[in-house]
Amino acid sequence: MPRPAGKPPLSSATAEFGARVRRRRAQLGLSQEALADTCELHWTYIGQVERGQRNISLHNIIRIAEALQIDPGRLVQGLASTT
Amino acid sequence: MPRPAGKPPLSSATAEFGARVRRRRAQLGLSQEALADTCELHWTYIGQVERGQRNISLHNIIRIAEALQIDPGRLVQGLASTT
Repeated sequence: MPRPAGKPPLSSATAEFGARVRRRRAQLGLSQEALADTCELHWTYIGQVERGQRNISLHNIIRIAEALQIDPGRLVQGLASTT
Repeated sequence: MPRPAGKPPLSSATAEFGARVRRRRAQLGLSQEALADTCELHWTYIGQVERGQRNISLHNIIRIAEALQIDPGRLVQGLASTT
């Protein structure tokens, strides 16, 4: 059976943010679970962030950036609203 | 009568984020009300953000950055968690 498509991203900004997290996580060779453990966030939440389904807060942006060993500014730079 | 001190910032990250918003808003000569109008956010919310009392979401970071005519990455770069 095909995998259900799932919920769409909230916005192009959350989609791009999530893609950056996923790309950097893969670069470090981390699973979602390993990243979640380091951030002290739930792995299902990390999955939702990577799919752009969360309007993530500043504190969680920082936690994820620290776990990914990058500046939080790099996850956010260039993002624009879609209105 | 002295002005009450008010609530403390949530964290050093929200405090620094708010200070950057306030500094850039002043640089542009905007009132909190004028910034709030451009962002379509309430001016009391802008005040709370500037005082570091809000764990602001990605969408609102982007709205405020756009109203301040700067990259959202500049508001977030270098911020660190306090744990």
